Amino acid sequence: MIQTHPFRFTLEHTDPMTGARAGTLTTPHGTIATPVFMPVGTQATVKTLSSHEVAELGAPIILGNTYHLFLRPGSDVVAELGGLHGFMNWKRAILTDSGGFQVFSLGATNIIDEDGVTFRSHLDGTLHRFTPERSIAIQEQLGADIIMAFDECAPYPTTAEYARAAMERTHRWLERCVAAKTRADQALFGIVQGSVFDDLRRESAAFIASQPVAGFGIGGLSVGEPKPEMYATLAATTAALPEDRPRYLMGVGSPEDLLEGVARGVDMFDCVQPTRLGRHGAAWTPEGRINLLNARWARDDRPIQEGCDCYSCAHHTRAYIRHLLRAEEMLGARLATIHNVRFLIRLMEGAREAIREGRYAAYRDSFLQQFQPVPDSVRAEQRALYGRRKERS
Amino acid sequence: MIQTHPFRFTLEHTDPMTGARAGTLTTPHGTIATPVFMPVGTQATVKTLSSHEVAELGAPIILGNTYHLFLRPGSDVVAELGGLHGFMNWKRAILTDSGGFQVFSLGATNIIDEDGVTFRSHLDGTLHRFTPERSIAIQEQLGADIIMAFDECAPYPTTAEYARAAMERTHRWLERCVAAKTRADQALFGIVQGSVFDDLRRESAAFIASQPVAGFGIGGLSVGEPKPEMYATLAATTAALPEDRPRYLMGVGSPEDLLEGVARGVDMFDCVQPTRLGRHGAAWTPEGRINLLNARWARDDRPIQEGCDCYSCAHHTRAYIRHLLRAEEMLGARLATIHNVRFLIRLMEGAREAIREGRYAAYRDSFLQQFQPVPDSVRAEQRALYGRRKERS
Repeated sequence: MIQTHPFRFTLEHTDPMTGARAGTLTTPHGTIATPVFMPVGTQATVKTLSSHEVAELGAPIILGNTYHLFLRPGSDVVAELGGLHGFMNWKRAILTDSGGFQVFSLGATNIIDEDGVTFRSHLDGTLHRFTPERSIAIQEQLGADIIMAFDECAPYPTTAEYARAAMERTHRWLERCVAAKTRADQALFGIVQGSVFDDLRRESAAFIASQPVAGFGIGGLSVGEPKPEMYATLAATTAALPEDRPRYLMGVGSPEDLLEGVARGVDMFDCVQPTRLGRHGAAWTPEGRINLLNARWARDDRPIQEGCDCYSCAHHTRAYIRHLLRAEEMLGARLATIHNVRFLIRLMEGAREAIREGRYAAYRDSFLQQFQPVPDSVRAEQRALYGRRKERS
Repeated sequence: MIQTHPFRFTLEHTDPMTGARAGTLTTPHGTIATPVFMPVGTQATVKTLSSHEVAELGAPIILGNTYHLFLRPGSDVVAELGGLHGFMNWKRAILTDSGGFQVFSLGATNIIDEDGVTFRSHLDGTLHRFTPERSIAIQEQLGADIIMAFDECAPYPTTAEYARAAMERTHRWLERCVAAKTRADQALFGIVQGSVFDDLRRESAAFIASQPVAGFGIGGLSVGEPKPEMYATLAATTAALPEDRPRYLMGVGSPEDLLEGVARGVDMFDCVQPTRLGRHGAAWTPEGRINLLNARWARDDRPIQEGCDCYSCAHHTRAYIRHLLRAEEMLGARLATIHNVRFLIRLMEGAREAIREGRYAAYRDSFLQQFQPVPDSVRAEQRALYGRRKERS
C-alpha cells in the first residue's frame, strides 16, 4: 500500500441518531476538522477572494481544478512556481479533482475509450488527452494534499447498463491511478459511482474500499436527480463504506444538502454555489436565499444577516452591497461571496459541535425548520439557464 | 465668510529650488499630509477595493463622484445611510467633485445655459438638471469633507473666446455655490479654469482667490494638451495663486505628472489611472509601466516590484497575477490595482519627505531618470481607444 503519511483520519464521534460523524483529517498542510465545506478555487483562486481572505473565512482546505489548471497556466508552470500552494500562496490544505468531470462537461467533442478521454480545450480548441496515469501525473505537478482518482461520471438519467459500464471503467481506472501514484506526501481518494442504482453503489463502495485509498469520493450525485433520490442513494452508499476513511460528497453545496449529507455520514463537501450565487447577487440567510439586487434592500441598513461573523456583515449594509452589485462593482460580488462561503463553513462548524455534543438531529431540524430551500423546479430552471457547462467550473 | 472649521491647511515647507510644498490639511475625518494622491471611488468604492484595503494602502482621503452617486443609488439614499462615509464605511476624509465634468463628458445631449446644465443619464436616458445650487445641495447630502464648486471645463483645443466665456461662467457659478453652501463641516474649493491661456489662468486664479474658498481646484488640464503645454499652464496658474490654501490638480495621475505637478506647487491629485490601468493589467514599476499580461512573466517568480511594500508584492508573483488577469479572475485586477495605488501614494509620501529635507529636485530627477513614461503618442491613442467618455469615470 502506498504510504500516505502524514495523512491520517481520526473518527472522533458518530451521532447515534443520524450517523453524522465528527473527525479530524491530518494533511501535510494542517489538520481539518470534519465535517467540512471546501470552497472551490477553480483557477487557483476562490473567485473574487484572496488566499488571505479565504483563510480568514476559516477554510482549512480548498479545491483546485485539474482540468482548468492543466490548460491554464499549465501544470508545469504551477509546478515550477512551487505547486498550487506556492503559486497561489495558500498555506493550508488543497484537494484537486481528477479533471474527469470537467473533461466530460466542459471539453468539446470528447471521445472516451478504455484507455482514457480525448477532448478539446474549451479555451482554444486544442486537442488533449487525459488517462488515469496522466491525471495523476498532473495532480502530482499541482501538488495538492489530496488527489482524486480519474473516473467516469455517468450523466443523469442513464440506464443501469451504462451506469454499470461507467462504474466498472471507474474501478479499472482506479487501479491504474493507484499504480501510477508516486508522491508519498499526497493522499489518493477513490470515487464511488453507480448513478442512482443502490446495488451498483454498494458494489462500487465495496470495490473502492478494497483499494489502497485514503478516502472515498462519492461522485455522480447532484447531477440533476430529485433530492429524495439523491439522499436515498447517498444513504445506500455511505452504509456500504467502511468507517475508517473520510467520505467526500463531490459538488454538493446547498445548506440543506450539506446538513442532509452530514446526517448520512458525509465528512467533506465542495461546491461552487456560495461563490457563484454571490457573484450573481444571491446570499444565504437563516431564512433562505435572498436576492441582494431586490429594490426592497435599497435603503436597508442591516447587514445581509444579523449576527453573522463575516467581514461583509460586520462592515457593510444590504443597501451598500445592493448598490455595488447593481453598479457592477467587483466589491459587491466579493462581499456577497465572503458571506456565502462563511455561511457554509459556519454551518459545518456548528454541525461538528452538535455532533460532538450528541445533538446533531436537533441542530439539523432547527436549521431546516427556518430555512426555505430553493424548490427543485426553480433549481432545474437555473440549471438549464446556466447550462451544465458551468455547473462545477 | 462661511465657517469651514475644522478644516485647516498648514504649509510646513516650501522647497526653495522648485516651489514644491509640504503641508497638512485638517478635516473632520482626519489630517492629510500633502502632497497627496487621492484614489478615485467613483461609485462609493475605489474599484476592486474594500474601504479597509484603501486605508491599508495609506490613503488619508478618497474621491467620490457626484454625478454617478446622484444617479445611482441617489444622493438621498446615501444621505439616509449616513452620507458617503457611512454608506461605504470609510472613516477618513472624502472629496466629492461637483458633477460638472461628468455631465459634460458622460451625460448625453447636455444643454448648457447660464443657469446650469440639462443632461440625460448615461444609465437610463432620464432627464436631469444640475445648477450650482443643485450641485452643492447634492454634495451636502453626500457629506464629503471637501466639496467642489460647479464649473464648466472647456474642451481642448478651444478658442480664447470660448475659454474666456467658460471661465467667466465658472466664476459666476462659484459665487452661487458660495451663497448656496449651508454645511459648516464641509470645505468648498473653487476651480481655476482658462484652458491653456496664461492670461486667463492668472485672471481666474485671482478671482477664485478673492472668494471665500478653502482651496483651489485646477481644472481643464490633462484633457488632451501636450505635456509641455500642461506643465507651463500649471506653473502660470500656481504662480498666480496665494500660498495659504491647498492646490488640487484635478484628474492628473501619472507618476511623472504627479512629480512635475508637485514641483509646480500642487498639493493634491486624483486620477483613475492606477485603478483603470490595474484592471487592464498594467502596473507601474520604477522603470516604467509593464503589461502584466505579457508572456514573459508566465514563469516569473518575482513580485511586480522588488521591495514594494504593497500587499500584492508582499504575497504574489508576476506569474500568478498574470495568470489571474488572463483567466479574467477578479483577484488579478484587484492585486494590480493595489500595487498601482500604493505606488502613487508612496511616491507622494517620498516627495513629502524629500521636500521636508530640502532635496525634492533630486528626488524627482532620480525617479524620472529611471522611469520611462508612456509617450504622448501612445497616450493619445489610448485616449481615442477608451474614449473621453471613460477618462474620469
